Amino acid sequence: MSVNWIRALLLTAGLSCSMTGFGMQALTIIDQGVFAVGGTVVKTPGTFDPYHPEAQGQTLHGDHAVVRYQIPAQPRDYPLVFLHGYGQYTKTWETTPDGRDGFSNIFLSAGYPVYLMDQPRRGDAGRATRSYTIEAATDDQFWFGQFRMGVWPEFYPGSQFPQDAAALDQFFRQITPNTGEYEPKVVVDALCAVFNKIGPAVLVTHSQGGGLGWLAGLQSPDLKGIVSYEPGADFPFPEGEVPEPVANSGFFGPQGAVSVPLQQFMHLTRYPIVIYYGDFIPKEPSANPYADFWRAAVTMAHKWADCVNRHGGDVTVIELPAAGIKGNSHFAFAEKNNQEVAALLQRWLEQKGLASRKVGLAD
Amino acid sequence: MSVNWIRALLLTAGLSCSMTGFGMQALTIIDQGVFAVGGTVVKTPGTFDPYHPEAQGQTLHGDHAVVRYQIPAQPRDYPLVFLHGYGQYTKTWETTPDGRDGFSNIFLSAGYPVYLMDQPRRGDAGRATRSYTIEAATDDQFWFGQFRMGVWPEFYPGSQFPQDAAALDQFFRQITPNTGEYEPKVVVDALCAVFNKIGPAVLVTHSQGGGLGWLAGLQSPDLKGIVSYEPGADFPFPEGEVPEPVANSGFFGPQGAVSVPLQQFMHLTRYPIVIYYGDFIPKEPSANPYADFWRAAVTMAHKWADCVNRHGGDVTVIELPAAGIKGNSHFAFAEKNNQEVAALLQRWLEQKGLASRKVGLAD
Repeated sequence: MSVNWIRALLLTAGLSCSMTGFGMQALTIIDQGVFAVGGTVVKTPGTFDPYHPEAQGQTLHGDHAVVRYQIPAQPRDYPLVFLHGYGQYTKTWETTPDGRDGFSNIFLSAGYPVYLMDQPRRGDAGRATRSYTIEAATDDQFWFGQFRMGVWPEFYPGSQFPQDAAALDQFFRQITPNTGEYEPKVVVDALCAVFNKIGPAVLVTHSQGGGLGWLAGLQSPDLKGIVSYEPGADFPFPEGEVPEPVANSGFFGPQGAVSVPLQQFMHLTRYPIVIYYGDFIPKEPSANPYADFWRAAVTMAHKWADCVNRHGGDVTVIELPAAGIKGNSHFAFAEKNNQEVAALLQRWLEQKGLASRKVGLAD
Repeated sequence: MSVNWIRALLLTAGLSCSMTGFGMQALTIIDQGVFAVGGTVVKTPGTFDPYHPEAQGQTLHGDHAVVRYQIPAQPRDYPLVFLHGYGQYTKTWETTPDGRDGFSNIFLSAGYPVYLMDQPRRGDAGRATRSYTIEAATDDQFWFGQFRMGVWPEFYPGSQFPQDAAALDQFFRQITPNTGEYEPKVVVDALCAVFNKIGPAVLVTHSQGGGLGWLAGLQSPDLKGIVSYEPGADFPFPEGEVPEPVANSGFFGPQGAVSVPLQQFMHLTRYPIVIYYGDFIPKEPSANPYADFWRAAVTMAHKWADCVNRHGGDVTVIELPAAGIKGNSHFAFAEKNNQEVAALLQRWLEQKGLASRKVGLAD
């Protein structure tokens, strides 16, 4: 075996250095692609005449999710399925606003198959089955506040959000609108269709996606765990155990929970769940309306964890500052310290037996 | 060096077998991600008050393209930049309707850096700067005809389109609507911004994207070549040399060309261009309106190639059946024989010096 041949092999394997000039560790991918899943078909009554085409007799395929996936070499047993939040698409997880690796690259490098979902009526899954008007609203500065980068135009002191103009430009440009009415059931059905297609996997949600994840978790038999970054307060409690909404000074009113039959609720006790919240969330009611909204969400998250655990479940709520991880906004997984945030999740996956690998090399 | 260590290295390099169980050759990626590029910012006049947020003083970042990229190990010098056509997004190039490798996987495996673009106001680049109503039109069967799979409900005999129901379902679901008014200048500006960001590269367009590619090719200094699958007839000719529109029995009327100043036109003579058309396009006027539309496009393509070449350029028009590749629709790069279609392009890239590799292993 010549030295050149070994060098060639090392280069091909990307092992000549542990990190490339681009910041990402070289990655061997054994399969990748994109597919539509779920959705429905609507049809205009009548007969289609191809030589005089009108709407009559034609179909529209819509309301599906679009899923982009990558399988690394020597994959772990349970893929991670990532669902974005309000106004976002898969970029939430792909690349940080300052152009570094997002969670998808980080967890691919750690050996997890990754499935990234654009929910129905958003992004590449844009084809809805009903007409819809998108309003071009100027609202960037509101979201800067609501997502806890700071109170416009000031970042919070110690913020982990990259504070150059180019990063903020990229962040605002990862906002993309609904292309149809927002209907939770349409998204949850598509999310369940993803799990039905790929089999046992761990769901990772963000923000509004959190509430959709709990609803999928009530019914899909293939969920092995749920990881939720900063879900809102719309947690499902058993009938008769629903807490009062949590008053707050935010712009969305009191934050209430959801009532579901106990039998459905019990699904949520069958697998481990972890919930993370970032920094700049007060412990006591605050006149900062953005921060106080999140205080209400955290308050409800703790009530919900207590409820699920009382029924035999395994829910952990982690406030990142209490774990020594400070300065994070609503997008902890995409800020300057996101490798540290990922390492915390990786340890949880290991602790819960969700990092296993049936065959292949040791880590 | 132990045998186990060599085995580990081979496995990591994906060299233990040439093909994986998934059909894709294992691929080493040294960088991948997604970014927004180009676009504009609109602002509502006034001053933003974060504690009483209204539209006043807020911005909207929109009209950018979204580009997803991957860089393979030992990359060739010139990336391929892929632009979809009407009603499509990046999936055009990513995965075939029957779930096999699309051109992005094929050309990544061949060593090309790949940049896949969602044009402004489409797919993940959905945020437009003006409001817009998306009409949920039932029109799948029309596109089946216009895209030359056949005349609904029959496929053309010998069609290379995968003819199972699941593939057709996936194909219809890769249609996604405009999320804002279609304005060629907005797309061309974003396309030029892509080349400005990444430097010298080859543009690969499809269908409506073809006309946008010629417009970008009139101005961007970084285009090293253009590959166009089935562009429409809207080719740019020098003032005074524009041919008459080509009458046809299709649904879009006579197909006309575009007039540009000679000085601009001459940019198109500076790099090689290849244009491919698939099968089922008649040589003579036809009563099949779908096929006859494409006859008009091919007719104009030949006139345009003659014109560019007369001015010193290098344009080749290839009708795939004449090259022995039969049965293709409007989506030759995504049908059953797409490896053969890719091999034809790879030979053209080699012939034109666009397959070079400054450093690294020989092929």
